[in-house]
Amino acid sequence: MTTQPREYIADHQSRFQADFFELLRIPSISTDPEHAGSVRAAAEWLRGRMAAAGLRASVEETEGHPLVLGRYDAGPEAPTLLVYAHYDVQPPDPLDAWSSPPFEPTVRDGMVVARGAADDKAQAIIQMGAAEAALATGGLPVNLILLFEGEEEVGSPSLVPYLREHADHLRADHVIIGDSMMFAPGRPSLIFGMRGLAYFEVEIRTGGWDLHSGQYGGAVPNPAHVLAEVIASFHDREGRVAVAGFYDAVAEVPDAWREGWRHLGFDDEAYRRTAGGAPLFGEPGYATHERLWIRPALTVNGMISGYTGPGKKTVLPCRAAAKVSCRLVPDQDPEEIAALFERHVRERVPSGIDVAVTTYQANPPWRADPDAPLFAAAGRALEEAFGTPPVKVAHGGTLPIAREFAETLGAQVAVMGFALPGANMHGPDEWFPLAHLRGGMEAMVALYRELAR
Amino acid sequence: MTTQPREYIADHQSRFQADFFELLRIPSISTDPEHAGSVRAAAEWLRGRMAAAGLRASVEETEGHPLVLGRYDAGPEAPTLLVYAHYDVQPPDPLDAWSSPPFEPTVRDGMVVARGAADDKAQAIIQMGAAEAALATGGLPVNLILLFEGEEEVGSPSLVPYLREHADHLRADHVIIGDSMMFAPGRPSLIFGMRGLAYFEVEIRTGGWDLHSGQYGGAVPNPAHVLAEVIASFHDREGRVAVAGFYDAVAEVPDAWREGWRHLGFDDEAYRRTAGGAPLFGEPGYATHERLWIRPALTVNGMISGYTGPGKKTVLPCRAAAKVSCRLVPDQDPEEIAALFERHVRERVPSGIDVAVTTYQANPPWRADPDAPLFAAAGRALEEAFGTPPVKVAHGGTLPIAREFAETLGAQVAVMGFALPGANMHGPDEWFPLAHLRGGMEAMVALYRELAR
Repeated sequence: MTTQPREYIADHQSRFQADFFELLRIPSISTDPEHAGSVRAAAEWLRGRMAAAGLRASVEETEGHPLVLGRYDAGPEAPTLLVYAHYDVQPPDPLDAWSSPPFEPTVRDGMVVARGAADDKAQAIIQMGAAEAALATGGLPVNLILLFEGEEEVGSPSLVPYLREHADHLRADHVIIGDSMMFAPGRPSLIFGMRGLAYFEVEIRTGGWDLHSGQYGGAVPNPAHVLAEVIASFHDREGRVAVAGFYDAVAEVPDAWREGWRHLGFDDEAYRRTAGGAPLFGEPGYATHERLWIRPALTVNGMISGYTGPGKKTVLPCRAAAKVSCRLVPDQDPEEIAALFERHVRERVPSGIDVAVTTYQANPPWRADPDAPLFAAAGRALEEAFGTPPVKVAHGGTLPIAREFAETLGAQVAVMGFALPGANMHGPDEWFPLAHLRGGMEAMVALYRELAR
Repeated sequence: MTTQPREYIADHQSRFQADFFELLRIPSISTDPEHAGSVRAAAEWLRGRMAAAGLRASVEETEGHPLVLGRYDAGPEAPTLLVYAHYDVQPPDPLDAWSSPPFEPTVRDGMVVARGAADDKAQAIIQMGAAEAALATGGLPVNLILLFEGEEEVGSPSLVPYLREHADHLRADHVIIGDSMMFAPGRPSLIFGMRGLAYFEVEIRTGGWDLHSGQYGGAVPNPAHVLAEVIASFHDREGRVAVAGFYDAVAEVPDAWREGWRHLGFDDEAYRRTAGGAPLFGEPGYATHERLWIRPALTVNGMISGYTGPGKKTVLPCRAAAKVSCRLVPDQDPEEIAALFERHVRERVPSGIDVAVTTYQANPPWRADPDAPLFAAAGRALEEAFGTPPVKVAHGGTLPIAREFAETLGAQVAVMGFALPGANMHGPDEWFPLAHLRGGMEAMVALYRELAR
């Protein structure tokens, strides 16, 4: 009797864990040019492991850090699944906040503590292990493409050009973005929506130099006052965005989604604590998770004017500036929002005072159909691996590649991950539950089978 | 026939100018510890010149840079005049903005260009020259105290303790603060009021760390939004301060003052250009000079929150802070204003969000009686020297020592200066009209005589 993939996965866990630790020891910090050699070393290591797993593997050069590509061709009748993950990591600073060295994986209570454990090296191990298990036990029933990026933590500058250039070669029916987390311990999740992002800078100038606040205070306009009035006008007192037309294009979601989410047990109190403890605040009529998943938001990310050092300086500033970003939901269009935003700002700046509005980023929101076949198949696969069906949720963040995969490759896209909430992804003592290596691999081999049915 | 003081002054102009240049060559930058030796060298130089002029001169030690004291005793029946000036200067940065080296005095079109020329070394030369001229031509009819400070540009930390400790020794009937400018070329001025200053920092905190704007935007409070609402609430749309009770203690001024000032020809357009060119804006019902001289103001001096570097960062800040200062007029009390301000701020911060209000400085306003004998005498003296009576004005800035001299020494106080508007006092190419050395000395010897009549 041939071995089943689940048995193979179970039998090889200690080697998969050893591989995981080996990968975690490579400090593939993409933001730090001094670590470029480590990033490449990680890519080469991955190519070797992909090849050992039975995939055609290659390191794909870009203008920045390389991608690692692994392929298996099951045949033209089989569906094609592309799985994305990234092998670069955030810097570990501040080092003294770690209880063990960030690039020396340490196991505590079943958790591996290391930089990159959750974000996102566990995914690389899981995806390669699942492919190996399937191939070693009678074959992989889908055309599989593993695409591991080395620039996720620096904004993925090379990924979109690569995708567009190689779209024919990468065409897939389904894409799993393997870079997220479960909803809660024991509760896997599938993410089917991420908000878009329109990011602006507003700059108000009343002159070319700062003035003495005694010689001018009370007699000339103050750009900090003007900017404060503009920012104060962005919301009404209840927390709605007050930019005219901002909500016009927002699509209502099916009642069933909101009803289903009501039973999720989203923990407002725990969420509030992760945010620093202030009382939660947002658009009336929506629960916290709805404010994040299906409602847009406008956020001041930064503002500055005049003197901000210690003590006092009696300056009347000549300039005030703010960074402001909008998280967008379907069917808001970033360009339309940019126009509404700029009009709103300009209407509130008195004539004779210079104002400039710059758009730094404009990404539309992404939302998949949570009832599409990919979600049904992945739902069954996750239930098989974790004993409970996944929750289908959206996410407040922005993942431009989700929409890019969908549009460039013509694929259905889902976001799926095995880390747990509180994994300190960009902080000290990042961790990943060791048992989820196995669960993730089991879910993946089940997904291959479900997609091929 | 004995020489008159005016002749003496005229005859010795070239030496006074040489002295002026010698003093300007000493880089007595009080803010820069590396220049402490130069500050002391300037003090010693002044002591020597005071002694040569016929005064009892001493360098007075403090915890910081020294004061220079010069005295002449005319006798117990003569009135006592104390003249204050300062011999320290601002740093010359940015050096490349100067058209000649800042500590190498250069004459262009009758103007001496050098750091400290206008602020305030011309005063030292004028005051010592006037005393010398009076003593050399038959005597000085007043008890004279020259008090030159070396810490004016660092906030005068030692002056008030020195005054209070030596109040008996420094008791004066009249004090001239020699650190200002004329109203316009050919139009001397006497300043009889300066605004007070209450300087605050407002800090709003929603947590201990910045958050990801995707994972939290729209669901948690944003301290930048809260601070912007607070700042926007400081003024009404027309430009009045909207802090409840802010104007309650403001004293109305005599109609005659406002009527007299209407004929001054305060040049709004020229003032607007010095402010950077934006349209003037302030409290309705008052002219620009009135907004500065007799009306209080509330000014944001600085504000900061979140990310303010280049480009974008999707951060939702945990902290926002602003520096805010109020310029006060009689009879506003800085402590009362601080209480009103703090109440106003606290009422506008939602409960559950931390707010701290810190007071950095609280100086009451100063206003003298412009019809007091000192102003009458100085008015006649200035008219004699410059051919036109001075305008009696107030000033929007704050000069805590004015009130300190009045209260500690029991003196009448006036502020009088001979620089001209646009002298770039803290900027590059600071300048002083050479002819005003002579005019200033003539005014001072006339003032001695007028005070002694």
